Order: sequence, then C-alpha cells, then structure tokens
Amino acid sequence: MNTTAPERLRSSPLLTDLYQLTMAHGYWKTGAHNKDAVFHLFFRHNPFKGGYTVAAGLADAVAWLRELHFNSDEIAYLATLKGNDGAPLFSSGFLEYLRGFEFTCDVDAIPEGTVVFPNEPLLRVRGPIIQGQLVETALLNTINFQTLVATKAARICHITRDEPVLEFGLRRAQGVDGALAASRAAYIGGCASTSNVLAGQLFGIPVSGTHAHSWVMSFDSEPEAFQAYAEAMPNNCVFLVDTYDSLEGVRRAVESGKWLRARGHKMAGIRLDSGDLAYLSIEARKILDEAGFADTAIFASNDLDEHIISSLKQQGARIAFWGVGTKLVTAYDQPALGGVYKLAALRNGDGAWDHKIKLSEQTIKITNPGIQQVRRFTLDGEYVGDMIYNEDGPPIDDANRTIYDAVNFIRFKPIPPNATTEDLLVPVFRNGKLVLEMPTLEEIRARRRAQLAALHEGSKRLLNPHEYPVGLERSLLDMKTALIMKARG
Amino acid sequence: MNTTAPERLRSSPLLTDLYQLTMAHGYWKTGAHNKDAVFHLFFRHNPFKGGYTVAAGLADAVAWLRELHFNSDEIAYLATLKGNDGAPLFSSGFLEYLRGFEFTCDVDAIPEGTVVFPNEPLLRVRGPIIQGQLVETALLNTINFQTLVATKAARICHITRDEPVLEFGLRRAQGVDGALAASRAAYIGGCASTSNVLAGQLFGIPVSGTHAHSWVMSFDSEPEAFQAYAEAMPNNCVFLVDTYDSLEGVRRAVESGKWLRARGHKMAGIRLDSGDLAYLSIEARKILDEAGFADTAIFASNDLDEHIISSLKQQGARIAFWGVGTKLVTAYDQPALGGVYKLAALRNGDGAWDHKIKLSEQTIKITNPGIQQVRRFTLDGEYVGDMIYNEDGPPIDDANRTIYDAVNFIRFKPIPPNATTEDLLVPVFRNGKLVLEMPTLEEIRARRRAQLAALHEGSKRLLNPHEYPVGLERSLLDMKTALIMKARG
Repeated sequence: MNTTAPERLRSSPLLTDLYQLTMAHGYWKTGAHNKDAVFHLFFRHNPFKGGYTVAAGLADAVAWLRELHFNSDEIAYLATLKGNDGAPLFSSGFLEYLRGFEFTCDVDAIPEGTVVFPNEPLLRVRGPIIQGQLVETALLNTINFQTLVATKAARICHITRDEPVLEFGLRRAQGVDGALAASRAAYIGGCASTSNVLAGQLFGIPVSGTHAHSWVMSFDSEPEAFQAYAEAMPNNCVFLVDTYDSLEGVRRAVESGKWLRARGHKMAGIRLDSGDLAYLSIEARKILDEAGFADTAIFASNDLDEHIISSLKQQGARIAFWGVGTKLVTAYDQPALGGVYKLAALRNGDGAWDHKIKLSEQTIKITNPGIQQVRRFTLDGEYVGDMIYNEDGPPIDDANRTIYDAVNFIRFKPIPPNATTEDLLVPVFRNGKLVLEMPTLEEIRARRRAQLAALHEGSKRLLNPHEYPVGLERSLLDMKTALIMKARG
Repeated sequence: MNTTAPERLRSSPLLTDLYQLTMAHGYWKTGAHNKDAVFHLFFRHNPFKGGYTVAAGLADAVAWLRELHFNSDEIAYLATLKGNDGAPLFSSGFLEYLRGFEFTCDVDAIPEGTVVFPNEPLLRVRGPIIQGQLVETALLNTINFQTLVATKAARICHITRDEPVLEFGLRRAQGVDGALAASRAAYIGGCASTSNVLAGQLFGIPVSGTHAHSWVMSFDSEPEAFQAYAEAMPNNCVFLVDTYDSLEGVRRAVESGKWLRARGHKMAGIRLDSGDLAYLSIEARKILDEAGFADTAIFASNDLDEHIISSLKQQGARIAFWGVGTKLVTAYDQPALGGVYKLAALRNGDGAWDHKIKLSEQTIKITNPGIQQVRRFTLDGEYVGDMIYNEDGPPIDDANRTIYDAVNFIRFKPIPPNATTEDLLVPVFRNGKLVLEMPTLEEIRARRRAQLAALHEGSKRLLNPHEYPVGLERSLLDMKTALIMKARG
C-alpha cells in the first residue's frame, strides 16, 4: 500500500466513517433500510466568534453525490474487513446490495455564497435512511471546511474594505486538497486571487505572485536581483524588499522602477513581508511618492488575519494589497466549523412522519425536528430575520411572521408585514438526479457580495457582533416543545 | 470550470505558488537556471509548545517528485496567464523549456517516523536552482501538514500510555486529502485505527467504527436500537450509550451484552460521547463490572486532545479506548507547522559553493548556511544531542563532538566520547532517480516507536518540556558568524 490512487480520491464512496457502513449494514439486516428519513446538516455557532457564516462547498458535495456507487475494488476491500471474532464484518448479501447501490434521495440546499446562521439547515437529505446515512461524512467534510474558509475570507475582506486580498496559503494548507478547497472557498468569500496555480487551472481563479527572498539571495546584491527580475518579468514586478533592510530595499526597487518606466513598463508594487508593517508601509509610501511612484502599490504579508489587518488600518498603514496565507487557509483561530448532520424525521408504518429530536443536557444542543426550510425576511434591502419552518407542518402563509427563539423559548421577534420573503433551500437532487443548474464561481461570488451587502453592519463587526435573529416558526416550536416533554417523560 | 480533474490533483506540477514559476522564468531568462543550488526544508519551533516533532509526509513528497513533468494542458494553461500590460506572463521559449523539464536533483531527507527538532533540515534539495525552486511549495505542503499531525498523534498516544487512540476526524478535516493525509500521519504518530474507510483502503490502516446517535434515534427505544445492532453486527458491538441518559444507556447495553454472550459473541465496548467523561466512565465501569462485563471496554470521545486526556487520567477515568477527531486532524491548537524552505548555497562561476544566509532582525530567523547533515549522538540508548554540520566544510571526524547553539553562540554542549553517532539524512533521489527503498507504514511506525523510546521523558512532557540539545558543528558556526558579519558590514 503506502501509495494513493488519485482517480477515486474525491469520488470514492469509501470517503466515509466506517460506522456509516456498519449502520447501513444494520439497517439492511433489519429490513428498515428503505424507511424514508430526513437529515439536516447545520452548525451551532458562527465561527471566529463572528456574526455570520458564508455557505460554501456544495459544488464538491454535489460532485461526490453524482458519482456515488461502489466499484469492485471497493466491495472487495469491504469484504476483507473482520469483526472481533475474525469473521467478516459485512455479509455477502449486504455487499451485493452495495454493488447495486444507487442514490435516489431528494437533496435541498442553501446555495453557496449565501449568508447563513446557526441551526439553519445548509443541506437537507430526504430518502431511504440507509442512503441518508451513507452520505453524511462526505457532506460534512466538504461543506464544513469550505464554509469555514469562505467565512474567514469574507471577514478578512470586510476589514480590508475592498482592498484586494491575495490568498497564498498552499504551503501551509492541510494537504493538497486542503489547499485546493481552501483556495476555492477563499475566492468565494472574497479573495481576489490565489497563489495556487493548480487552483487557477482547475477553478479559473486569478493567480498572482512574483518572487521570494531566495530570488534576492541568489544574486550577489539586492539591486542586481531587482534589476534581473525587472528585465525578466517587466510586466509582473512586485519587488520583495525585506531580504536585508526593508526601506533600503524600497529605494533599490525605485531604481528598477525607473528602468521599467523608461521602457514603458510599470513597477506594480513593492512587498513587505516582515517587521513593523504599519511603520514600514508609511515610510515606504513616502519614499515611493517622493520618487514619483505614487502609482506603485504596497503589498504586505506575514501571518495576517482580520484582527492584525484591522490594527494595521487603525495605525494608518499604507497597504493596498493584503497577502494572506496560513491564517486563512487553516482558519487558524478556529480550524473546524463543527457542523453536524442529524436525523430529524422518519416515516412510520402508517406513512406519517415521526419527528425526532436528540436530547442533550445543553439546551442549545437539542436538535430541531421537522422537515426544515428557512424563510428569510427582507425589509428595505436589509435582512431582518430568518424563520426555520416545517414543510410537513401546517401551511405557512404570508401572515406567519413571528420568529421564536429555539433555545430561550420566551424570546420572539415579529417581522413587519411589508418585509419580503425568500425560502433559502432550493432543490438540488430529486430522486437522485441533479436538478439544480450549478452556478459558476463568479455567480457564487456575486451572490456572496449581494448577501453581505444586505446584512446589517453590526453583524459584520469583529468584536461582539450583533446577533442576527434566527428562530422557529410557531408550530415547529410547539412540536419541538412537545417532543422534549414526551422524551423527558 | 468549477469542477476538479482528480487524476492530476496530487501529481500536478501546478501544485505550486505562481511565484515559483515567475522566478523560474527569471532564472531561465538570465541563464542562471542551471546553477547548482542547495535548499533546506526545516521548521523553527516544535509545534504545540512541545519538546519534539515526528517527521512525516516524505512518501507523498516523493510520489509528487517522481511524477514531476508538465503536460500539454498545463503548458496551455500557463500560456493563458497575462502580466499587468496584458501581454503573456511567460515567454514561449520558457514554456518550451517547461515542456521538456526533467527533475534531476539530489534529494536527501530524514526518514518518516524520525524524531526531529527545530532548525534541522528534514529535507535537502541539491541541483539546478530552477528545479529546487519549482519543488518548494509541494514539498512544504506535504511535509508541513503530515509532520504536524504525526506529532499531534504522538503527543496524544504518549498521554494515553499505549491505550489505543482511534482517529475519526474525517468529517471535520480540511478537505478530502486533508483527511487522508491526516489519517496517514496520525497512524504514523501512533493511532491504532482510523474511521476513514478510504484511508483504510489506500494505506492499509485498520478501520474502526460501530454506530452513531442516529441509529438509536431511528428506533422507538434505546433497548430496541441496541438489540437490533447486536443482532445485525454481533462481532462489532460498541454501544453508544449517551443518546438519552448515559448510565441508563450502559444498563441497557448490558442487556444486549447478555444476549450476545449467550450466543458466543462479545460486547466489545460501550462509548461515551458527551458529559463528564471522568465521572461517567467510573460509574459505567462499576455497572459493567457488577453485571459481569469486566472485559467490556469503555470508549470515550468528544473533542479530546492530549490535555483533556491527561486531565481525565488524573481524575481516574476508566477509559480504555480514546476516540480523537477534530483536535487531531486539524491540529486544532496549532493548525500549521510553519515549516520553511530556504536557499543555503549556490555554486559560483569558479565551481565553489557560495554559502547563503537570510538575515532577520530576529536572531532565530537567521538561516543556517552550508550543505547540511544532522548527526545524532546516542548514549546508553538515549539521544543526547543533534549536531548540524556542513558536508562541504572541513571533514567531520569522530572526535568532533561539541554542539554550539546557533542562536546564542556562547552556549555549547560537549558530547561524551562513548556516544554513538548516526547521520539522519539519507539519500532519496540521485540525479532525479529514486534511490531509497520506501519503507512501509508499519516500518515507519516501528521507527517512530523506537525513536520516541530513545528520547528522554522530559522532552515528551506536555508542560515546559526539556529542550533537546540541537546546534551547529564548530566550523559551520564559524562560517555562519562570518557570513553575518559580512552581510552586516
């Protein structure tokens, strides 16, 4: 072994936790495997102590679902697994079942680029329980991580206020695909480009980059290094000035800038990658301006995140392009979203839905029942609240405009009658067939832009953001209450 | 676009930062591209404030290097990239050069599973500077992340003191490959199994898993759920007992355990996934023992890491199997290693090596020059110090046994004459051809075990670990000092 077979890496049905397969085996053995079930994928807290989250990762989830089948190698591998008595873990009948497995569920999801909040289903799977169970892990893997990074990118870009953020996290990303998924999600979240050339090729994301310290070190002197770069790449000159002495480096860059200008080219920028970025950028700006290079931008990098950028801005840093790597692609201060995937309803023998909750000592961890949809209310172009309702419950009409807090049942928020409504989950699969025309990355970016524009500034601030109102529709709240009472006796 | 082409995902030469290609273009244009250069990959601090690091990721780096070539699609993509004047970024001559590119470097590396320390080269690339530059990012991506996770796993397994650690981080991992690479590295670091079935198939890692809360919730009652699982999977029974009430769940599991035992099967365990794991495990142990199930193990999970496990052990928790996910696969408390790759030497026109350093205001960030090898000294089965020396320097004989601190030049450590020596970097590629017989994962695990056994306990503790002595050989220290003096005038 000790090698990887790349072809099936991203589409293998074995991209799952073993317990999904042992449970599937159990459902199949008990004959309950085709019982209709509803699962929701959601998270419980906005990441980074923030006020919002940007949904991402659906495209990869869809790609995986479309390929979902078990090939002979995969079946053969599963046949090798043994239980604690040395006998096969899986019966041959079950392996035959997997060989003929077809995905036939309905999937609804909130499109990528949408601003979402805790407890809202980002994705809903409805169909045979065995299928809903087998897709759980792959859905969580793709959506958890990309949603996390898209949100991080959105937070950073919000703080730079439209100044371009360049993602260059590949070297510190968590594996090849950790990097690719991160580049894609960062672009959804608002980054202007990636350094990852493969992400450029695969996704069409603009790529950017110029030179490293090693370029400068490979020459006998810094001026020689800049000049050689200018001659070699006259249309891509951002000189990294901090190999020896940053401000001296800026002065040396100016010399090559003059050379470029004399030949009709442009010194696009200088880059600071260490030291006091506030002080150095202010001083570098003076040097550049005094030398007649007001149009040469200052790029900065060095473990930046939204907090450091915010501080640099407060100090008056003269930085126009922000290079962000490690802290973005690993979501450094919270490297996992913690999204979960929970059973919410199961159809009983009578054909009616049995709604399910998972109890917990922590009230916030008690799941919401129902077949959930999210209705968003908008007033004068601003989002004013999201209401989770049950599509299996009493009809929800336009008059139904009160949101009840799912944790603290007493709190509620009435929505003005002139607010417009939109249901966020859209059909993605019907009976296992893709029915959604998948948006392009640019369309997803446009959606993210529009969504964030409609979110109150207070929800976007870094410190103690305003809590956007999300709650349950009244009859769903009543159902939840009744289920809790029943479960607790 | 908006889709991914899986075949080339893990072997594409475009898995790099754009600036590697723009610098390559620069080297090619200046005609300096075939100058012999030496690069080292190293990190500056042990992760997690620990006392050691476990090297991992070399196998993936080797696999990538072996495939290194540019295909037509990749060349065509690069030809589409534009500079700031709208003209192509890369000249057609350079693209032709890339089309014929062959990797011809020598690569030496420290084998996976080796205990390593800050500033030691984990990997050394020697060959044409253009090649050394083009491989930087992929090497960092694979080695940084896997080394980080292997180290985290080793820390966790050290605290459980040989009690099995089960890795199940797939759902929270950073993408598909973030998960696969993490499962592999966690196994190298000491985990007993993974939940990731694909990692089992690809790498031969044992897989484990039983059932989730959703299994229990899909039945009308918990006893019914346990019994159905027992009947379906009698040789894989670890009952998850905390869906409703953990200790009540244990009592219910006992009933199914009796049913299993009567039929010659075994209740392998019960699993706690929430609540006070110390209290609950102690109480669950009593219930199991009193019911005659002393051989039924208690599994625990819920955001565990080495610190929480250490605390649980201090509280007398009766846990025998530790399920670890998010905190392990994302290396939650430090999700990036911060490894770097630096130019250390360049052959000049006279055929001699020009040694290079990168200056910094922070002394610790000044790089070490030379063509580095690491000599480890062992006394009575215990490692007593590592000496970085220059293979291009004066011959290092067996009498050369004093290690000089590379940061604080005054500190030094003499090594006793009866200590044995071993050089850690071994040849991996010669002239671009793989010359190392790659070890199996089991061999890598055995190496990690032996290495950690030879490391002083003080270096393995979580809090303020003993700092293992690593430094420079005297002539390398002198060279570094001279280079710093020269660079600073």
